[in-house]
Amino acid sequence: MTTQKSSAHDKAAVPDIVIGRLPIYLRTLTIFRNSGKDVTSSQELGEYLGISSAQIRKDLSHFGEFGKQGTGYNVAYLCKQLEKILKVDCVWPVLLVGAGHLGHALASYEGFENRGFRITGVFDSSQEKVGGQIGNLVVQPMDELNDFVSRQRCQIAIIAVPAEAAQNVANLLIKVGVKSILCYAPITLTLPPHVQVEYIDPVIHFQHMTFYLSKGCIDS
Amino acid sequence: MTTQKSSAHDKAAVPDIVIGRLPIYLRTLTIFRNSGKDVTSSQELGEYLGISSAQIRKDLSHFGEFGKQGTGYNVAYLCKQLEKILKVDCVWPVLLVGAGHLGHALASYEGFENRGFRITGVFDSSQEKVGGQIGNLVVQPMDELNDFVSRQRCQIAIIAVPAEAAQNVANLLIKVGVKSILCYAPITLTLPPHVQVEYIDPVIHFQHMTFYLSKGCIDS
Repeated sequence: MTTQKSSAHDKAAVPDIVIGRLPIYLRTLTIFRNSGKDVTSSQELGEYLGISSAQIRKDLSHFGEFGKQGTGYNVAYLCKQLEKILKVDCVWPVLLVGAGHLGHALASYEGFENRGFRITGVFDSSQEKVGGQIGNLVVQPMDELNDFVSRQRCQIAIIAVPAEAAQNVANLLIKVGVKSILCYAPITLTLPPHVQVEYIDPVIHFQHMTFYLSKGCIDS
Repeated sequence: MTTQKSSAHDKAAVPDIVIGRLPIYLRTLTIFRNSGKDVTSSQELGEYLGISSAQIRKDLSHFGEFGKQGTGYNVAYLCKQLEKILKVDCVWPVLLVGAGHLGHALASYEGFENRGFRITGVFDSSQEKVGGQIGNLVVQPMDELNDFVSRQRCQIAIIAVPAEAAQNVANLLIKVGVKSILCYAPITLTLPPHVQVEYIDPVIHFQHMTFYLSKGCIDS
């Protein structure tokens, strides 16, 4: 199934920074929907997100007409359309490398399933960890990666290993055909251009908040 | 010490979405600096980040003149200025609530220290966890929160507890005077307007990447 977007538009035409905002819109719209809100506006969404309503309307206009002038957006409909555009109107298999503390936390994370993702395999290079239970999965050795990825047609991986191991893990993932990597290690991976990477970086969030705080440091 | 920004400008004048991009610029400029690059341009930065060079110049122009027409930006200087603007030219104390797997992972995270932050206290409500070692810290009971926050003048907290406990923890943190919360739990907190919250949400990153993938779901 192709999405509204990819069938109707040229991906290259939409700036990546716009694509990056769509999941944030979807998250907020889903909160609205779950709280029983039927209709919203770019103004309301913008106030909630700290983004201008003009920006939101411009972003969404890349993908079609979702609201009528004056009447606003149907929340449930816009959720559905964004899910289609982002291709999360289904569940993607995700493999996790790293069965340490972070891996355990991620395996029991409740935020994936109803938003389009499920961790279906956990891998670790440590012989002590292989065979152990993590969530409802058994930790597999790294040399099972290849079979797993081709069997599940898994394109998405999470790297939850120490910084010094992350690049090697990324190289392995690319070798077996993974196309998108979410990296929790505090390093910048070197990857071929056809592989997507995103980083979980708590400091980006801290630094956004400290801007608004009056300085209070340990050694300033 | 006040930052260049807060001394020279009205915070309200700069859109929050611009502030949110500054840490991303700083992260990339720091990578450039650490790789020995002396000079960069809004074009180079933009290509690296997938943001238009005009946007980057516009964002930075809120805070002053950082580059000369044609000669580009001095990387080290711009890093220093952004660190000042974001107030991370120092180390902020951060308290962590939740000594589970995620808490252990965060306590040993190597990405905080040289970017302006240090976890200086870990708290948990479980009697089994209190008194235990996590990283180089001893897990404290929740009723120590108040003393800790006033003693360290700690304004920033990480919530690393299960979703069903997160709101109560947030309420406690606000009561003792925490002003900024980074929440790892997959819920949306209800908070008074004077408290900042950011969420670590891996799904936002996944959904950004699936847009570019050809659909390959478990049950699509």
